[in-house]
Order: sequence, then structure tokens, then C-alpha cells
Amino acid sequence: MTQTAFRAQIFHLLDDPHVAEEAVVYHRDGLLIIEDGHIRICGPWSECRGLLHRDTRVRHMPDYLIVPGFVDTHIHYPQVDIIAAYGKQLMDWLTTYTFPEEARFSDRKKCQETAGFFLDELLRNGTTTALVFGTVHEVSADVLFEQARARHMRLIAGKVLMDRNAPDNLLDGPDRGQAATERLIRKWHGKDRLGYAITPRFAPTSTPAQLELAGRLKAAHRDVHVHTHMCETKKEIATVAALFPDSQDYLDVYARYGLVGDKTVLAHGIHMGADMCRRIARAGAAVALCPTSNLFMGSGLFNLARLRRYKIRLGLGTDVGGGTSFSQFATMKAAYEVAQLRGTSLGAFEAFYLATLGGARSLGLEKHIGNFEPGKEADFVVLDLSATPLMARRLSVAKDLHETLFALMILGDDRVVSETFVMGQSAYKRRRA
Amino acid sequence: MTQTAFRAQIFHLLDDPHVAEEAVVYHRDGLLIIEDGHIRICGPWSECRGLLHRDTRVRHMPDYLIVPGFVDTHIHYPQVDIIAAYGKQLMDWLTTYTFPEEARFSDRKKCQETAGFFLDELLRNGTTTALVFGTVHEVSADVLFEQARARHMRLIAGKVLMDRNAPDNLLDGPDRGQAATERLIRKWHGKDRLGYAITPRFAPTSTPAQLELAGRLKAAHRDVHVHTHMCETKKEIATVAALFPDSQDYLDVYARYGLVGDKTVLAHGIHMGADMCRRIARAGAAVALCPTSNLFMGSGLFNLARLRRYKIRLGLGTDVGGGTSFSQFATMKAAYEVAQLRGTSLGAFEAFYLATLGGARSLGLEKHIGNFEPGKEADFVVLDLSATPLMARRLSVAKDLHETLFALMILGDDRVVSETFVMGQSAYKRRRA
Repeated sequence: MTQTAFRAQIFHLLDDPHVAEEAVVYHRDGLLIIEDGHIRICGPWSECRGLLHRDTRVRHMPDYLIVPGFVDTHIHYPQVDIIAAYGKQLMDWLTTYTFPEEARFSDRKKCQETAGFFLDELLRNGTTTALVFGTVHEVSADVLFEQARARHMRLIAGKVLMDRNAPDNLLDGPDRGQAATERLIRKWHGKDRLGYAITPRFAPTSTPAQLELAGRLKAAHRDVHVHTHMCETKKEIATVAALFPDSQDYLDVYARYGLVGDKTVLAHGIHMGADMCRRIARAGAAVALCPTSNLFMGSGLFNLARLRRYKIRLGLGTDVGGGTSFSQFATMKAAYEVAQLRGTSLGAFEAFYLATLGGARSLGLEKHIGNFEPGKEADFVVLDLSATPLMARRLSVAKDLHETLFALMILGDDRVVSETFVMGQSAYKRRRA
Repeated sequence: MTQTAFRAQIFHLLDDPHVAEEAVVYHRDGLLIIEDGHIRICGPWSECRGLLHRDTRVRHMPDYLIVPGFVDTHIHYPQVDIIAAYGKQLMDWLTTYTFPEEARFSDRKKCQETAGFFLDELLRNGTTTALVFGTVHEVSADVLFEQARARHMRLIAGKVLMDRNAPDNLLDGPDRGQAATERLIRKWHGKDRLGYAITPRFAPTSTPAQLELAGRLKAAHRDVHVHTHMCETKKEIATVAALFPDSQDYLDVYARYGLVGDKTVLAHGIHMGADMCRRIARAGAAVALCPTSNLFMGSGLFNLARLRRYKIRLGLGTDVGGGTSFSQFATMKAAYEVAQLRGTSLGAFEAFYLATLGGARSLGLEKHIGNFEPGKEADFVVLDLSATPLMARRLSVAKDLHETLFALMILGDDRVVSETFVMGQSAYKRRRA
């Protein structure tokens, strides 16, 4: 048995701090012991050092803060090269930028090159788990799984399902994507740390027949995820209402095909009333909040207070390329801004919860990741509290942990990530200027 | 006569590109010749090389983009250490964070230490000119001028005027700040590249008597600036209405004391109707848009379309510490987001205009700075187009200048700034990882 150990400041959450204040765990002089890629113990140095083996080398980093690996609950890997594309809102964005770019992912080489960059960029930003859109092409998901496996990452992904309202070369064939989806599930779901998500892009690009197929696939493979978009913009909602006149609302389009359950992640969820929130909560589905995307695309401001009131499981999604950063710091900051504009408070503990354990719970992965409870997989990030002159200065006057974490999420970027560990192994290390 | 020269990509604006498309100037292979700190010529290498002296060493940086130094039209130097402070909107922010911090600036050493960091941070972000709030203390402005002068920066600043609704130790004495303001004007206004701004914080913290004094000072010193806040939040506007029942509206409070003219910069200007915009435009006053602050504080979304319709002079303000970044890239990005949320377009040319020539015009400094017209002062920034792996990748597929600039403003941060020049001299140089 291999044991490794890290002595540093350590912060993680045992529960949602918005619900349970005692959820916050912080060790000023903490010890994290890893055995065979899993957490053996996390606690104060003074209490836990007795568990160290005689030959274990302890890395001592008193100026650094260790937190759980970040979880990105909604991101598109084929959109890396259209990040920061100008001047469109959602529906025009798709036709102008997304579809032409996604058409290139029929090519395995293109998929390989982009997936490699994408996963390395996640790790560079401290993100160790993500729920990822591919393109309609089977190869796009196949390659992403290959490369995530090579990096030992816990990752859930799927090929997109589309069979209308997109260019012909991006539509599933006569079987509406069934065979490719089934092959990918067989090949990848449950292999090592990987999981499959049935991934209809969103209601406007699937016929009722394809959504019905998606529901049958879900029924046949009960433990795979469902990953789609919902209620991102008002124009999209009007389109869905016109395309599905028999459905009560946008959620009902998915629900009536059996696509809304406790393995479902709905990206965005901005324009939703109380009744829809109640039904999402009852179904146990999760919503991926994507604030950098919502601000950049002008989609609107999610109603955090209402989502909380109905106890919907929530995580953060960068939504690259509609989102503008791979960083969960940037995403936490934007979530705070959206909350401020709506007069809702979002503290740093709550924001870090969304970016770690909340994300893990949203993906049903809390048994494996999300914090440092014994037995969990050792995905974690070492944060540099003096990554820039401004951060060093600002954090030096922080009076408590909350102030430190809040300044980190407002001022932080990829530079804060000094080193990222996957299953206890270093997967990225920053070179400092 | 000393001549220096830079051969690189060069971008600047001769006018507002929203009004005049031909305002955009870009040289793929450009030459910038500096003589005695001023622009001798900016143009294509092939056309301008004949103006080089025989012994001039040309720095050739074909992968870099040179742009004019950025202009920050609204920022508080004493708020560096309360950047990213949690959970308040404007009026509570002031009492909880700002006033206690500003009280420390009665001490010259504190002013010196903070002003030095502040100015270096501006330069690190490519900002070569700023309009800056001090505190109520004379020494705060005095020290800032000293240090800006030592860096040869073009800078406008002032001591704050406050005589009510703030802690006693932050209020002007019986003369309501007259003597200190006059001393500072005599000592600093027009010295080297410095200018003075009469700086009532905002209407709620000045009595009518102090605003009247401010107006008399402005009348006595016609070429100094007036710098204040206006219409940032609805609560503040209601406070002003209650405090000044005889005034038509917030603008009128300032206007009736002679404080709204072509040297006036009003920070924020979010909640303003058409009539107020018309009067601002008629007076020739400028509005400093502070979008990172407005998002962070939840103050609201400025109406760019309306401000443009009335042809109000506009610049960008970081508004640190209410704003969250010293970077004009972050500020341009936030301005784009605010515009998107209001359904207005803000292109990269327009955003860079606001951050350079637009800012210069807002401060009445367009004769001296803002672009590379011959004779202007040589304040400029060398931008690294591959500052991060994501930027390098994204910019490598940009099809034209607009796409490049837009990706820079969305993805960019202080790392993009490779070197900052003030009056032709290197004032900051980045160390690369």
C-alpha cells in the first residue's frame, strides 16, 4: 500500500453550508493522508500524524490551501475554439458559431487534439470532474472517454442527440442515434471512473421520436445520466412551446419521455416558475448554474433564492464555449454577481460548496468525490494564496477563512491553482513567473 | 533628440468607431517612432521606416500588438485593500468597508505605501492614465500626486469632500475642505502631467453649503476637473431626493452649484432617464461606466444604447475597490455583459475606444493621449497574444482583427500586458512563467 501525505491548510465541506452551518471544515495546520489513491484521513496535523507510516514523506506547504477538486457540471468540449465569439444570443450563437465548429468533430484527429487540450485545461484550472457535451458524432465521445481514462479522471459525457433544426451533417441518422449511444454505453459506462450521459442537445433539436428513444435508452440503462439544456433564454422557451404544443411546459417535454429523474442534469434553468421548480425537486433532478455563460450571452439571471427554496440540487457549470472561463473561480464570481443583481446573498462557503460537493451531488457522485471524507477518491487542488501581487496583498489582510475564500473566488483565476491531483497523483503543476 | 522605435502589430483609434467606421487603424507590420517621449509617427513599416535615424535601434516584436495606454476614468486608490469585500450593496458597503478603511489615510506612510502599490498595479494592467479618488485627507491626494509624478504618469486626482453622513474623522472641518483643496490645486494642478479634480464623494455626503463651496472652487479654477458619483443605485437616488427636496433630480443637485460642465466626470450613471441624459450631453459632461463594480455590487445595468443616443462622452472605470479588477480587459468584458443583458451590442472596437481614446476624451485629455497621432505623449502597451494556453489557442484561429481584439477583451487579464510604456519609457515589464 502506497501512502502519501500533505500538510497544509485544508478546507472542505461535509454538507451544504446554506442548510447546515457546521458543514464547514477548516484545518489551519491540516494533514491529508492518501492511500492507494483514496483519502485515508483528513484532519488536524496534531491529531492525525499518528496515522503516518514511518517511511511516508510529508509534503509541508503551510502557505497553501488544499481544497477538493472542482466539479464542472456543464461544459462542451468541442466549443473550446469558439469561446469568446462575438455578439450573439443563444439561438443565433448555435447557428453562427456552434454548428459549423461541431461539424469538424467527425474527424478523430480533430477530436483527439481538442479533447487533450480540453482535459488539460480543466486540470490547469483545478477541475477534476466534469459532465461534458460531445458532438453528435460517436467518435467525439469515444475519444474524450479515451483521453479522460488516460488521465484517470472521473468524467461523465455523451454524444449529442439531434435529429432536426440543425445542419444535415449534424443530425443523427435513421436510428436517431440509438446504435451509437448503445455502443458508447457498453464501451465506456462504468469503465474505470467514467460514466455515460444520454445527451439530447435540447428540445428544439430533437423530434418527439428522438426524445422517446432517449427515454427508452434511459429506461434500459437505469444508472446512466441524462444531460440537456433547459430554460436558458425566453426565445428558446417560445420555440419549445411552439414545437411541443401538447406539453405543459419545457420541463414537461423532457419529463413525459422519462428524461427527468435523479440522474438528470438540466443546464441553465434561468426562466422557471415555482411550479417547475417544485417538479424538478420532486423528480430529484439537478440544475447546472452557468453564470459566466448567462452574462456573456445575455441569457438572463437565474433565481438562486427560488432554486434554494425548492431544495433543488445545484452545481456550477462553466458552459464553455458559451461561458467565458474554465475556472471555477470565475464561475463562482459570476454566480455571486447574478445573485447580487437579484438581491440574493451567495457566500463563499456556499459558492465553494456548489463548485465541489454540490457539483458532486448534482452528478450523483458524492460517494466518490466532493470532499475529503475517508475512503473517497483523492482528487484535490493545492491553491496558491499569493498567485498575483493583488491577491497576495488582499489575502494578507483577510481576517478569517470566509474573507480569504471570498477574495479568492472574486480575484482568482487559473494562477491560483498551484497543483492538481487526480487519485492522489499530480496531474498538473503550475510553473510560476 | 532621442529616438526609439517599435516594429510590431499596432492598433489604435482616430475616433469613436460607433460613429465613424474609418476610425479603426491597424498595421499588421507597423512602426511606432518615439522622439523625446512623444509620438513622431505611427504607420506601416514600409512607409515610415524612412523616418528612422541611422542609429535608432528598432525593437522588432512581430507577434505582439501595441495599443495606446489604457485610461481608467474612475477609481479609488484607498480602496485597494477592500477589493472583493463580501456581501454589501452601495450604501452599506460605504459604512461597513469604505469608511473604516479610508480613515487610515490620515497617515502619510499608509498613503505612500498604498499609492505606490496602486500605481504599479495600474501599470501592470496597462493603464497609464487614471482619474482617481483619494480620501478626505489632504495628504492622501498629495502623496498620490508625488508618486504619479515620480512615474511620469498623466493622472488626475483629488481629495474627497465630505461634510455629513460619514464618521466624524472623515468629515472636512469648518472650512468644508476649501483650504486643503486650494493648496492641492496650487501645488499640483498643471505640474508636469498632473491635474486636479474637485471631488465631492456624492450628494449624500455633502451639505448644500459644501456643494456651493465646490462650485465656487470650480468657478475660481476653470480648468480643474469635477469628479463625483451619480445614479449608481436606486436607494442612493432616493436618499438624494430626500436630502435635496428642492432639486429637480440627482443631476440637478450638482448642476445648480455649477458642478456639471465639460470637465465633469460622473461615475456610474446607471439609473438615468432620457431627460437627464439630454442635460448631461448639453453640459458636455462625461459618464464613467463601471461595469465590474455594477455587477459585483448588484447596482444595476447601465443603458448603453440611451447613453449613446444622447452622444454623452463615455469612458470605462474599474471603480476599484467596488470594482473587481484593475484590468481594462475585465472592464471591457463586463461592459459587454451588461450590454448583452440589455440587448445592446458592444463590439471590440467600441470597447477599446472606451478604454483608450474615449477615456481620454472623457477626461478632456485627447490632445495629449488616447491614440498614436503625431505629437501625442507616447503612453502605450505591448500586448502578448499568447499569454495563456487558452488565449494562444483561441487567438490563433481568429480570422480578423475584431475577433482578435474581442477574444482579448473576453479572455484577457494582466498577463496580456507584456510591457507598459510611459512617455516612451518602459514602466513595467512582465516576467513570464
